[in-house]
Amino acid sequence: MTDRVFNYCAGPSTLPLPVLEKAKAELLSWRGEGLSVMEMNHRGPLFSQILAEAKADFAKLLSIPDTHTILFMQGGATAQFAAVPMNLLGDKGKADYIVSGNFSKIAAAEAEKYCKVNIIASSADRDFTYIPKAEDLRPDPDAAYVHYCSNNTVFGTAFSYIPESGDVPLVADMSSEILSKPVPVSRYGLIYGGAQKNIGPAGVTFLILDKSLLGKAMDITPTQLNYTLTEEKDSLWNTPPTFSIYMLGLTLKWLIAEGGVEEMAKRKKERSRVIYDLIDNSSFYTPRAEVSARSDMNICFKTPSAELDQLFIKTARAKGLFNLHGHKVAGGLRASLYNAMTMEGTYALAEFMKEFERENV
Amino acid sequence: MTDRVFNYCAGPSTLPLPVLEKAKAELLSWRGEGLSVMEMNHRGPLFSQILAEAKADFAKLLSIPDTHTILFMQGGATAQFAAVPMNLLGDKGKADYIVSGNFSKIAAAEAEKYCKVNIIASSADRDFTYIPKAEDLRPDPDAAYVHYCSNNTVFGTAFSYIPESGDVPLVADMSSEILSKPVPVSRYGLIYGGAQKNIGPAGVTFLILDKSLLGKAMDITPTQLNYTLTEEKDSLWNTPPTFSIYMLGLTLKWLIAEGGVEEMAKRKKERSRVIYDLIDNSSFYTPRAEVSARSDMNICFKTPSAELDQLFIKTARAKGLFNLHGHKVAGGLRASLYNAMTMEGTYALAEFMKEFERENV
Repeated sequence: MTDRVFNYCAGPSTLPLPVLEKAKAELLSWRGEGLSVMEMNHRGPLFSQILAEAKADFAKLLSIPDTHTILFMQGGATAQFAAVPMNLLGDKGKADYIVSGNFSKIAAAEAEKYCKVNIIASSADRDFTYIPKAEDLRPDPDAAYVHYCSNNTVFGTAFSYIPESGDVPLVADMSSEILSKPVPVSRYGLIYGGAQKNIGPAGVTFLILDKSLLGKAMDITPTQLNYTLTEEKDSLWNTPPTFSIYMLGLTLKWLIAEGGVEEMAKRKKERSRVIYDLIDNSSFYTPRAEVSARSDMNICFKTPSAELDQLFIKTARAKGLFNLHGHKVAGGLRASLYNAMTMEGTYALAEFMKEFERENV
Repeated sequence: MTDRVFNYCAGPSTLPLPVLEKAKAELLSWRGEGLSVMEMNHRGPLFSQILAEAKADFAKLLSIPDTHTILFMQGGATAQFAAVPMNLLGDKGKADYIVSGNFSKIAAAEAEKYCKVNIIASSADRDFTYIPKAEDLRPDPDAAYVHYCSNNTVFGTAFSYIPESGDVPLVADMSSEILSKPVPVSRYGLIYGGAQKNIGPAGVTFLILDKSLLGKAMDITPTQLNYTLTEEKDSLWNTPPTFSIYMLGLTLKWLIAEGGVEEMAKRKKERSRVIYDLIDNSSFYTPRAEVSARSDMNICFKTPSAELDQLFIKTARAKGLFNLHGHKVAGGLRASLYNAMTMEGTYALAEFMKEFERENV
C-alpha cells in the first residue's frame, strides 16, 4: 500500500480502498477479458453485464420496487435541476420547492426557466442553519411535483423526516446521502443525484424514477436529458460514462459486502458522533447547524477566527488530512464523512482537532 | 503485460497501452500525493493542474489560437446536438446542416426543436456512401451557423475538404477524427466531440469555441449546457468528469510524445492503406464507401453474405480481434483504426481477413 492521505472532501470524495484496488488490478484487463472497461463497446456483452450488475445491486441495496426504474445519466445534479422540470411538469405549469440549502436554491432558480416555482418553505432566513418543520409545509395539490434536497452538503444539515406531498410526486436530490441509510423508495416519484459524494466517482448521475412519470417530456427537452428515451434504451441512448458506471458498480458490491444500508446507517452515526461530541465539548470549535438539523455526512464548524480556520486547513493538509475547508458559500470548516470514510480516518481527524485546539486556544 | 486483445471498436475504443499503464500505476496515488484522481476536489490545486495541463496540451497539439477557448463538458456529442443551437442561434432563427451520415442526421433533427433547419446538402440518396461536393454547397448567409460532421463513424466516410461558410460560423462534430491530423482551427466557430473514439474514454466532451460566439444562449438553455457559464468557470461550473478529463490528458501527453498530429496523420494513412489495399485486391470483400469519400478512421466493408459477416465477427472474436461488427444502421463489418491502433493490430486484422477469405471463398 502507498501512503494514502485521509480525504474529507465533500465531493468528489474518498473511495473505499478495496474498490480502488480492484479497479487497479483489472485496469488493463477486466476479468481477464483482455481489455479495459474504458475500451469496451457500451452495447457489447461485457459492458452490458457491468450495467446489469450495477442496476441489480442498486435495486437490492435500496429494495427498489418494480414500480421504479434505475437510470444512469450525465451532467450531475446540475443537469437534473433542468431535467426534472423538463421531464415531470407535463401539463402542469408549476412545481413546489423546499429551499433548505445551496443546491435546492439553485435547483429552484433553474426550474424557473421552465415553470412557475413556488417556494413552499425556506431556511434562508437563518442562513440555512436549520431544516423547515414538517408541519409548516403547505404543498400545492396542483403542483407537478414537490422538490427537496435531503442532505445539504454545503451547510451540513439534513432532513430527519420525509416531506408529505399527498398525491403529488415527491422528488429528492440525495447526492450527498444516497445509500447511507434505508429509504422507502415507493414514497418518491424520483430520487436522483451525482455519484461522486457517496457511491462512486464523478461523471455519472443516478435516477430512481417511478415509471408512471415517464412520457411527459417537454418538446424542448434535449434528447440526452429525456427520461423516457433514456429508459427506453436502458441508459444507452448514446455512449454512457462507462468507467464511472463501473466504479459505481464496484462501490455497490463493496456496500453489499460490508452489510448494506443498515450497516452504513449505523456507521455514519458512529463517525459523526465522534466529531459532534468533540465540538460540543469544546469552547474552541463552534458547530454551524442547529442540533436537530445536523447532517451525519457533512459536518460544518469553525474555530474562533477566519485566520485560525485557514491555519487549521493548512496545518491539517500538511499532516495528510485533506480538504477540510468549508464551501465558498458557507465559509469555515467542513468534514465530509461519507460511506467510504473509515473510523481510522474519523479518529485521525478528532485527534488533529484536539491537538489544534490545544496549540491555538 | 496481460494478454490484451485487439479492439477495433468504433467507440469507446482501444486506448494507448502506455496511457492505461500510467493510469494503473497511479490509480491509488496520483504523482505520490496519496489519493486517486477520482478522489480529488475538482477545485483544488491537484485537479487544477490536471485540467490546466490537458488544456495546454490540447492547444499545443492543434495550435489553437487565442481567439478560441477549450471547454470540457458532459453528455457526448448527443448533448451538443441540442447545446449547439441553444448556444449559437442568438437572434437568428435558422441554421444550415450538411447531412452526410448517421450523426449529422440526428444533429439536424435535434436542432429542429430550437430553430428552422436547412439541409443544404445530403448524401442520404445513395445511403451515405459519398460526401457531398464542396461546389454544391449553398450556405445561407443569414444562418446562425453551418454544421457538419467531418468523419462519419457509422458509414466510414470523411470530408477531404473544409466546407466554405463565408462569414457564417462553421461548426464541426469531429468526434471520430479529432487529433488525427492538423486542423486550421481559426476557420471554425466551434469544433466539438466526444473523447471516447480517438482521444480518451467516454464521459467527457471537448469543445474548441471561438470566444466571439459566447453570450448568446437561449433562456431555456440548461445551465449545465450553457457555453458562456462553462467558459466563465473554466469548465468547473459543477463537478466535471474528473477521471475522464485526466485520461484524456494522459492521451494528449502520449500524442505529443509520439510526434503530434502530423505523425498521427501519417500513421492513419499507413493503417488504412493496409486494409483498403487488401479489400481492393479482393473479390471477397466489398468496401462500403466510394473511394474519394473513404475514412481512414472507420473502414466499412462486407463479405459476400450477411451469414459470412456474422461468421467473420464470431471467428475474429474467438481469435482476440474484437468489435468488427458494423453499426446497426449500416450493417456489415467495420474496423475502426484510431490513433491508439498499432500497426501490429492493423496487420493482425489483415492476416485474419486473408485467412478468412481463403477458408470461406
